Parts: sequence; structure tokens; C-alpha cells
Amino acid sequence: MIGGMGRWEPDARGRLAHAATTLCLEHGYDKTTTADIAARAGLTERTFFRNFADKREALFAGSGVVEESLTASISAAPASASALTVISDAVEALCGELQSDAGGVRRRHELILSHSALRERNLAKYDGLVDSLTQLVRARGVPEVEARLAAELGMVGYRVAFDRWFAGADESLPTLFVETMEAIAGLYRGPDEGTSVSPG
Amino acid sequence: MIGGMGRWEPDARGRLAHAATTLCLEHGYDKTTTADIAARAGLTERTFFRNFADKREALFAGSGVVEESLTASISAAPASASALTVISDAVEALCGELQSDAGGVRRRHELILSHSALRERNLAKYDGLVDSLTQLVRARGVPEVEARLAAELGMVGYRVAFDRWFAGADESLPTLFVETMEAIAGLYRGPDEGTSVSPG
Repeated sequence: MIGGMGRWEPDARGRLAHAATTLCLEHGYDKTTTADIAARAGLTERTFFRNFADKREALFAGSGVVEESLTASISAAPASASALTVISDAVEALCGELQSDAGGVRRRHELILSHSALRERNLAKYDGLVDSLTQLVRARGVPEVEARLAAELGMVGYRVAFDRWFAGADESLPTLFVETMEAIAGLYRGPDEGTSVSPG
Repeated sequence: MIGGMGRWEPDARGRLAHAATTLCLEHGYDKTTTADIAARAGLTERTFFRNFADKREALFAGSGVVEESLTASISAAPASASALTVISDAVEALCGELQSDAGGVRRRHELILSHSALRERNLAKYDGLVDSLTQLVRARGVPEVEARLAAELGMVGYRVAFDRWFAGADESLPTLFVETMEAIAGLYRGPDEGTSVSPG
């Protein structure tokens, strides 16, 4: 191999993912090539294709981290907790991690909104997360439908909170998530029961 | 125009949509062309493109009917009904309409599951329905977040009920939908409150 570039590159995947996001934001998704991405990361195109099937996948490299975070939280949850509590707590922890990289998360989401191929991939990612969460909670002995519904509700809370956060709400992502889950619960209480957040 | 085919064709759109579904089920999505679809419907390819932007859109022609059904139900709902009730009732009515064409709905869904481009389009359709439902309920004076959450919950109930129905559950789609919405409500009740359906 020319130029002494080793076969193993420390965090090649992370560097490629970062370069992909940066270049797509600078030049647009359609105008960015895998060769550009590899060059920006100081790696070969061959290394790119050892790590990702295509350009689009490099932009969704973070999905694995999201699944790992949710999996770790759910496996650490007490056995007595309800499916909905387990999922809410896991998503809240994920929101905290995303908040600590707020600038990066925001930039990535701007990029996703810029292209229909990325928006569609993003919807498919949510759908995959519902499946993963369902299976993780199923493994705790929760019946199928209850597990799926708790997973769906957690993702609804996440998506609604994320959209509010991205649109410029003052609160942090974890706070917005907790508020949104509380607002969902509020839909199932009469107007006089319990404390109700004002979701307007 | 040769062959006396008039510019206006009675229900050309419906015939093309039906031919598209039939041919894609027979030969696969990739192997079906717009020319095949037009020929099967007894129409010209030109008429096809007056009605649909591409092959994929012809398979989603029913989306307009779904939106019309939901819009009609919501505009007929009493002003005093909550956002969640208005949406649940509208989706339940839609489920009834789909049940009355059970065979056609099932065939179409088999087709969607057969190709990733159709699955992605289907997810985008659900996302669009959430937006439409949100706007319809917003127009009744419901605050933004409450409207969006009620819309999201209605679509969660619909998707979960639909998957159970498609997987071969004995009950009808409207019954499964009502049961699923009840199971969501059950997640917000303690184990000793109210009657709980068994969602397992």
C-alpha cells in the first residue's frame, strides 16, 4: 500500500463519519463523494468501504451508539419496573447523552432534513429503534403487545421532544422528553386529576 | 389520438392503481413497468403520467382516500370531544372502511413489505398522516403539542392494530384498533384500576 497508510486506522469509522457530516453540510449531500470523504478523513476510499456500504450509511454511523446506550440502560433497570418506566428512563438517559453533544446533534439533524433520502432513512431508523426496544423489553418477560406499545410511546415522546428542542425550545432535551411523556400521560387523565403540564 | 381513446377516461386513476398493484404482485415491483401498467388498465402510458409521477406513486393512490376519510370524520366530530377521542373515532371509522375491502388491503400490504422502496414510502405516508391529523385537530383549537401527541397515539394504535390484523389475528381491524387504544390507556392505569384488556 502506497504512502505507508496502515491497514488498521485508529477510529477510522469515527473519522469517516465526522468527515461525511462535515462535507455534506458544506457542499450538500448530492455533491459529496465517498472519495472526498475518505480524503478529508486522511484515509483511502478502500478504508471507507471497509467501514460503510455507502455514503448514506456513513451519516447514520451514530445509530449504533444510540442502540448501545438504550441496551445498557434497559439491562441495568430493576426487574420490578414497568415496561413504560424502563423505556422512559432509557430514552431520558439517551437524551442526556445527545444534549452533551448538542452542537453536533443539531448539525446532523439539519443535514438529515436537507435531503429526502436522508429523511426516509431517518424514519426507517426510528422504526428499527421501536423493534429493538420491543425486543429488549420482551426479554424481560413483558407480553408482546405491551412491549411494542411502550416502545412506540417512548419513541413518540422522543420524536416530539426532539422536534421541539430542534425548533429552539429553551429547555434541555431530557427535560423536554420528560415533559412530553408527562403530557402523553395527561391525555389519559381527566382535566381535574393530577398535575397537568401545559403543552401549548 | 389513435384508436378513439378519449382524453377523459372514467376512473383512469383507479384502474391504473389497481393494475399497478396486480402486476407488481404478479411479477414483482422491479420488473413491472409503467407501460405494462397502462396496457393492463387498457390506457396509454401518457394517461399514466397524467395521473401519477411514477410507478411507486400509483401503488400509494389510496392515500388520498385515507386522508379524505379522516378529514370527513374529524369535521363531523362534536366540538366538545377531546383531541384523543376525535382522532380515535376517526381512525376507528377508517379501520371499518379498510375491513370492508380486507382482501385488497391485505394484498397491497404484502406488496409493500416485498420491497424496501415501498416500505420506506409507507413509513413516510404514516409520518404525513400524523401531520395531517395534527393540523385537523389544531384547527379545532387544540394546542400544538396536545394535537401532535393525540395524532401520534392514533397512528401508533393504527399501526400496531394493523400489524396484528395482518399477522392473522381473529378479530376485525376496528376491534383490534379499539383494543389497542385501550391497551395504551392501560399502560397509564395502575394494575388495580379499571378493566384491563389482556394484550398478550
